[in-house]
Amino acid sequence: MSAGSRAPVPGSGEWGVGPLDHIGIAVRSLAEALPFWTQVLGLPAEPPEDLPHMGLRVVKIRVGEARIELLETTRPGTPIAKFVEARGPGLHHVCFRVTDVAWAGRYLASLGHKPLTDEPQVGAGGALVLFLHPRAGHGVLVELSQPAAGRAS
Amino acid sequence: MSAGSRAPVPGSGEWGVGPLDHIGIAVRSLAEALPFWTQVLGLPAEPPEDLPHMGLRVVKIRVGEARIELLETTRPGTPIAKFVEARGPGLHHVCFRVTDVAWAGRYLASLGHKPLTDEPQVGAGGALVLFLHPRAGHGVLVELSQPAAGRAS
Repeated sequence: MSAGSRAPVPGSGEWGVGPLDHIGIAVRSLAEALPFWTQVLGLPAEPPEDLPHMGLRVVKIRVGEARIELLETTRPGTPIAKFVEARGPGLHHVCFRVTDVAWAGRYLASLGHKPLTDEPQVGAGGALVLFLHPRAGHGVLVELSQPAAGRAS
Repeated sequence: MSAGSRAPVPGSGEWGVGPLDHIGIAVRSLAEALPFWTQVLGLPAEPPEDLPHMGLRVVKIRVGEARIELLETTRPGTPIAKFVEARGPGLHHVCFRVTDVAWAGRYLASLGHKPLTDEPQVGAGGALVLFLHPRAGHGVLVELSQPAAGRAS
């Protein structure tokens, strides 16, 4: 289906992001950070997933309908490497699900919030994702994610 | 019901926090930050709630089963005031629901992760809450919240 044929109408109640897909957490080391989430808080983790084009290794942790994603850099110079160098490990971004991420990107650009990339990128689990500039969210880095076809999350 | 009579058993699958209750976001000003969430992302906000004992004004924004909570300080010297001074506005903490926050606090203390206060505090919506030290979460400030009696969230 083309983006235009199902574009939600802002202000009509049709346009709204959600649900919350995941919270991205920058870690120095998965081996170091993971036991807090799994052994201390008792949450279930999936096996690590490598995203070589982003220089990331990701572990997803299910919590209700949302996830925690622990993000470890696999090379210097990635956004996660720079974040950890500058601020230490911690909360990095929040991601909401959208039905059509390309449409959402054009709509947000029309409001003056142009996404960081012109085209959606392929993220963890094959989702199509866009990031907004943290200025848009007043210091919060917001990701929008369209799940891969046939996947609910 | 006493905490002991329904204490979950770690490792049995009974102990595990969740679902995600909310993400706490430190803002400089609710008036400045709120339109991004409501007008740009199209999410529904509740009226502001004052927590004078915490020096906070909170706006809750529903997104699926979770919430965003925008946190504005109402006086100098609060943890939110210090956070915004030191790092600017942004993602501040992540909160998970638990059935018995006093039990959870004792259990986590027994693992070496003593909560920041000895007793749970009353948070937004009358929930009983505890915070863990960010060291426990490798840079992530984790709040645990037991909803007020008769409230699902």
